[in-house]
Amino acid sequence: MPTPEPLTLPDDVAVVNVGLDLFAEAVADQGRPVTSVAWRIPGGGEPEVVAALRRLYGPLAEQVDAANAEVVRRLDQGVPMLVGVRPAGEVVPGLAVGDRTLLHCGPRITYDRVCDPLRRSMRAAVVAEGWAPDVAGADALLQAGDVALEPANLHDTAVPMVTAIGPSQPVHVVENAPGDNRAFAPVNQGPGETPWFGMETPAAIERLRFLAEVAGPLLDEVVQRHGPIDVFGLAAQGVQMGDDVHIRTQASTNLLLRNLLPELMALEDPRRVELATFLSQNHLFFLTVAMAAARAVNGWAMQVEGASIVTTMARNGTDFGIRLAGNDEWFLAPAPPIGQALYYAGFGPETSAKDVGDSAVLELSGLGGPAAGGSPSVAAFVGGTMADALATTEDMDRICAGRSSRFKLPLLDFRGTPLGVDVRRVVELGSTPKVTTGILHVDAGTGQVGAGVATAPLECFVDALLDLDQRLATPAR
Amino acid sequence: MPTPEPLTLPDDVAVVNVGLDLFAEAVADQGRPVTSVAWRIPGGGEPEVVAALRRLYGPLAEQVDAANAEVVRRLDQGVPMLVGVRPAGEVVPGLAVGDRTLLHCGPRITYDRVCDPLRRSMRAAVVAEGWAPDVAGADALLQAGDVALEPANLHDTAVPMVTAIGPSQPVHVVENAPGDNRAFAPVNQGPGETPWFGMETPAAIERLRFLAEVAGPLLDEVVQRHGPIDVFGLAAQGVQMGDDVHIRTQASTNLLLRNLLPELMALEDPRRVELATFLSQNHLFFLTVAMAAARAVNGWAMQVEGASIVTTMARNGTDFGIRLAGNDEWFLAPAPPIGQALYYAGFGPETSAKDVGDSAVLELSGLGGPAAGGSPSVAAFVGGTMADALATTEDMDRICAGRSSRFKLPLLDFRGTPLGVDVRRVVELGSTPKVTTGILHVDAGTGQVGAGVATAPLECFVDALLDLDQRLATPAR
Repeated sequence: MPTPEPLTLPDDVAVVNVGLDLFAEAVADQGRPVTSVAWRIPGGGEPEVVAALRRLYGPLAEQVDAANAEVVRRLDQGVPMLVGVRPAGEVVPGLAVGDRTLLHCGPRITYDRVCDPLRRSMRAAVVAEGWAPDVAGADALLQAGDVALEPANLHDTAVPMVTAIGPSQPVHVVENAPGDNRAFAPVNQGPGETPWFGMETPAAIERLRFLAEVAGPLLDEVVQRHGPIDVFGLAAQGVQMGDDVHIRTQASTNLLLRNLLPELMALEDPRRVELATFLSQNHLFFLTVAMAAARAVNGWAMQVEGASIVTTMARNGTDFGIRLAGNDEWFLAPAPPIGQALYYAGFGPETSAKDVGDSAVLELSGLGGPAAGGSPSVAAFVGGTMADALATTEDMDRICAGRSSRFKLPLLDFRGTPLGVDVRRVVELGSTPKVTTGILHVDAGTGQVGAGVATAPLECFVDALLDLDQRLATPAR
Repeated sequence: MPTPEPLTLPDDVAVVNVGLDLFAEAVADQGRPVTSVAWRIPGGGEPEVVAALRRLYGPLAEQVDAANAEVVRRLDQGVPMLVGVRPAGEVVPGLAVGDRTLLHCGPRITYDRVCDPLRRSMRAAVVAEGWAPDVAGADALLQAGDVALEPANLHDTAVPMVTAIGPSQPVHVVENAPGDNRAFAPVNQGPGETPWFGMETPAAIERLRFLAEVAGPLLDEVVQRHGPIDVFGLAAQGVQMGDDVHIRTQASTNLLLRNLLPELMALEDPRRVELATFLSQNHLFFLTVAMAAARAVNGWAMQVEGASIVTTMARNGTDFGIRLAGNDEWFLAPAPPIGQALYYAGFGPETSAKDVGDSAVLELSGLGGPAAGGSPSVAAFVGGTMADALATTEDMDRICAGRSSRFKLPLLDFRGTPLGVDVRRVVELGSTPKVTTGILHVDAGTGQVGAGVATAPLECFVDALLDLDQRLATPAR
């Protein structure tokens, strides 16, 4: 056995520090390079959670990873095509023309627990559907339980912010041929006085009538003449042009409109000018087209059993809820405030409603937060520089199971956006999805007061993880 | 006097190397950090050039810097507004309806020296104007000198690629109120078989007729109804969305079209559908709008005496020419090949025409090459990554006198694009402007074969510098 070399100290040191920063800081103070690894005890050190993680990363890993791979494949390879714009009552499963039913954002909720802006939106919808003459009458109907409230998500539909729609409202119809499934989202209500921003003024109610009577029918004529539109093809171009395709859809909207220009200008109906004005002022028009597409690929992915990937993430302004692929059960937590935000002058956290809407389905599809690193507009909300925006993407990358092969970020040398939020990684790292979103006034009915990035609450992810572990550890009888 | 410390060698070295790389490489080989400064003898070491630089940076510097500051101010603060779309013969100074005159790209040239693709474009224009029944007849007229050839630039007009236009062709009319001046550029001919890409087929000639008879009149109606459009306001948004606003104008085009959508859809003329199809297929529609705007701010800047800043940079495919602010004289060099390029399959440098067109006026206005660092599309031509695109912007930054306050690059923390090409810096560093551009077939009349980034030839910048030095050193008698 050779004599060991005597122990010597190196002339120069460079340090990798794991966990607490104290030691790293001491080294850095002495002028030597340090790389800090932000390590925390997985799952917050809760024995039950650590045990579940141990199983889901251990003996159950092969099974979960295989299911996850199929989920990611479906999210990535679905081809959602916009094929029409129809009244919800004609196309949405479980809804019929004449039903006194509203589809609303987020998990199931009773009217008494609904937040102020969503109540206003519901009342506006009730009046626009003709079920009550005014918002007071609408409130009475809703209080009495005479209008059925259905989570849009349970009807293959995703609705943004505090949207509530009745059967007359037009929805984008998106078909995903690989999954032989469809999904829906309402035509975006646009800027100004609108119910999706929590307003119930006469102008807001009139907007719903305009959508049902003018915009919906004319847009359907346009889409029928044009033929099916590859929604994620446009979104992929939008990501190259600074859209996160959630709070920023300027580029995608404009690409869609230029594609449709011949069919728009071929409309004979003189109301086409009203439609043109609406479209010209609505840079978020693509938002709900993208949401319908995202709901379609997630709807396909939901059919995979035993995955640890989140395929529903939705908020009604009171509750935040998620579901995992292959499981109908919702896991709930209180809706969070929107942490990183820019407010209009005179507004702030104290005047803001909680995080709300089904649009977080985009974050499950490689858009929104995952695409932040391509968006100068999102950068404004997360620190101001593109490095800050990239950090939001990297946060998502650590909790996702895959990367998009179609949404690519120029700043990361055209790497795909993170895709497939893995509840194991979320719980292990204590890091939840980042959702880009608008912010509404908490109770004044005055609409939008800002925009920002919300961080999903951890507890519902922990609950979903524990449930998954239980389901997989206990084979079906 | 204190005793000097004995000379000691440091334990650790880090090196800044200036000039030749040999020493730097030796240090780097020993594993120590080196920063290399690429230094060359200014002006290539030519005594006459070095002497001129010494004066222009020395005793004449204050005078030149003051003039340059005013040039940069005009380039940066001009507000070019699109106010109409009129036949060139009605609005372009020195041109009248009925004149048998073509406005062409680049410096003045006689037909015998014109390159093949520009000849084809001229012949197509002659036929479209009705001066000859076919391209053979057009060639005879041109050979005989029976059509006057005028550089568009001498008529406050900028034309892209191998464009040649007669008085019937519609031009964008741009007004710059701060300078009380106007400038013009033809409505972009779009993709496919078109004269601006060097084609003279029946379809190419028909395109010119469509522009004169349909697109021009309808677009003028649209712009008149809409009111003046802030061209650089749209371009500034485009830069945030990945446009360099030269070879990539997708975002700016779409922004303009969405702005104009109500007026477009309000057109009663049934030929609006033809217009819609043309616009829908033409993602470079904004190119010539931006060129007219750039020509307008440069037209204002040209009125400043004694500056060292380039305010004309134009190519006819045979000659590359520049002019400095305050001086009508052209300085010429042979048109260069396009160095960094991507070619369509089956094409390459040997099948390519030389760098051509007046669109380099964009590079004098903070767009194109200066804005490369914001454009993933340009990145593809200069190495593939955003770092490569940024290097193109940084190359321009070193030879420019200022930075734009409206065109900002997210990747450089929203720093302005380089503005005002200073011939002193160009000659001192031996580094000329980078121009993003399309590439045409050298002689087959088959149109575009690629796109890339051209590097301007140095010699005309040296000549302009020597002339400036002479003019300033010899006070006006």
